[in-house]
Amino acid sequence: MTNDETLKGKRIAVIGSGAVGGYYGGMLAHGGHDVSFLMRADLEAVRSQGLRIFTKGNEIRLPRVAAFATTEEIGAVDLVIIALKTTANAELERLLPPLIGPGTALLTLQNGLGNEEFLAARWGAERVMGALCFVCINRTEPGVIRHLDQGSISVGEFRRPASARAQAIADAWREVSIEAKAVDNLAEERWRKLLWNIPFNGLSIAARANVGAVLADDGLRSLARSLMEEGLDAARRLGHAIPDSFADWQIERSYSMGDYKPSSMIDYELSRPVEVEAIWGEPWRQGVAAGATMLRLEALHCIIAHLTRTA
Amino acid sequence: MTNDETLKGKRIAVIGSGAVGGYYGGMLAHGGHDVSFLMRADLEAVRSQGLRIFTKGNEIRLPRVAAFATTEEIGAVDLVIIALKTTANAELERLLPPLIGPGTALLTLQNGLGNEEFLAARWGAERVMGALCFVCINRTEPGVIRHLDQGSISVGEFRRPASARAQAIADAWREVSIEAKAVDNLAEERWRKLLWNIPFNGLSIAARANVGAVLADDGLRSLARSLMEEGLDAARRLGHAIPDSFADWQIERSYSMGDYKPSSMIDYELSRPVEVEAIWGEPWRQGVAAGATMLRLEALHCIIAHLTRTA
Repeated sequence: MTNDETLKGKRIAVIGSGAVGGYYGGMLAHGGHDVSFLMRADLEAVRSQGLRIFTKGNEIRLPRVAAFATTEEIGAVDLVIIALKTTANAELERLLPPLIGPGTALLTLQNGLGNEEFLAARWGAERVMGALCFVCINRTEPGVIRHLDQGSISVGEFRRPASARAQAIADAWREVSIEAKAVDNLAEERWRKLLWNIPFNGLSIAARANVGAVLADDGLRSLARSLMEEGLDAARRLGHAIPDSFADWQIERSYSMGDYKPSSMIDYELSRPVEVEAIWGEPWRQGVAAGATMLRLEALHCIIAHLTRTA
Repeated sequence: MTNDETLKGKRIAVIGSGAVGGYYGGMLAHGGHDVSFLMRADLEAVRSQGLRIFTKGNEIRLPRVAAFATTEEIGAVDLVIIALKTTANAELERLLPPLIGPGTALLTLQNGLGNEEFLAARWGAERVMGALCFVCINRTEPGVIRHLDQGSISVGEFRRPASARAQAIADAWREVSIEAKAVDNLAEERWRKLLWNIPFNGLSIAARANVGAVLADDGLRSLARSLMEEGLDAARRLGHAIPDSFADWQIERSYSMGDYKPSSMIDYELSRPVEVEAIWGEPWRQGVAAGATMLRLEALHCIIAHLTRTA
């Protein structure tokens, strides 16, 4: 889908149907789009009971969902939405080829840094798009997604300004009342999201503190703010003009999340892989390479890397 | 004991008979000195079975130990050895007065910064001494101490050069084969010990890593070294000329400790109070006040403070 102005009639595949894939993909299906889901753990539950999304006091039921066990069964599509954990990126080498035709776009919703680069190196930069989800969401049981707070999504192109297809994808989400926009600087949006993930996902593991617990502890809240400032400095050195006030806004908007557990905290508690390199390792390396001083992030990354390796 | 040249014939009280008090106090009793122990949890076990110290392949049995439940029963002594956790310092206001006569010396073996100052403010600076124990030691059950590695002790005066009494106390430990010395700069010795405690006790809680696990993880070992460098800079700004090579030596000497769990790790695992302010908070505050940049320590302190508050 190169210069398309609508997602109507396009074939869409969602790879990785946890909370994020289930929510953003499910909402496209809810909007009438042709969405196929690759599922593993949830396959049987979704085939028999469909997908349920609890959002803003409503329950959205999708009784018939096109769920598949392999991408061969799905075949070539116009748009692949990638919502796999970054720790499973190696699996994409096997999962993506059956989905890719001449004009297939690859849209990663994954966290952290390095994902577009991974896709571009293998399937060509022109296919690659990314989106940042600012959302509090949990998959509470197979086929059940709970949307708790926030929910905006920013869609962009890899190292290019927003395109007609980015706008078309954003429009499709807006039609189902998701706050979506096309953005010209995807890399900057990644850093904006990281400025939240680095401290809040990080302290959820290192200090076993959910969002509310970080905000309620003077020391941790101050540390979260300082980690954001380290990230702001790195982002600026990498060419992204994010204002100081963004850090305050990130702190302020977090109060409404209550005792939300970031996805990394849930992963860590359940001994599942944590996206250590995408969220802390790669930003630290890129920041330091750009001349930033990120000593708090260095400490946090070393501690989290050890905790998640030995969990 | 103001200008005494020997500990012979002096009355000694040990307050806080965990691993450190039991070992250093027990070894003085083993050397024939008159030592009374204030005990709580271990009182009955020690009264019935005595104290046992396993050290360097030997078992030292002290079948009859003068163990008491109150300091009133002990009465005034010449030397009080304080081996209570710093988190229980407030209890000293009640425990110490019965032990103090006109010439009573107060020797704290406690960790971290602020302990001599606490004693000096209440009972006079001239009484106050401190000692740093570089030792791997655990109290494995009531009345049983296991000495695992290291074992040296440095005895000094509070803000004064080493005195005859400091030398006499060190001599008493040397007579029972403990590597002991009198030191002229107690504050510098405190920082030398902190340079080990800050990273190794700290990462034992934040990263749940014992000494061997820190040394085996490239990231944590490097972080431990960086935390030592922050401490070295702070110590120098506070007037202590500790050479760079000391950090390397601290790392190197730690390999022989194997999978030793620092006392803070055991405290944390058993949900006992951890000496957060003495080991991380006060060094961070003093270092920053002296102009040092201690961002890794700042992060570590915030994380540990939260973990130990909510444990």
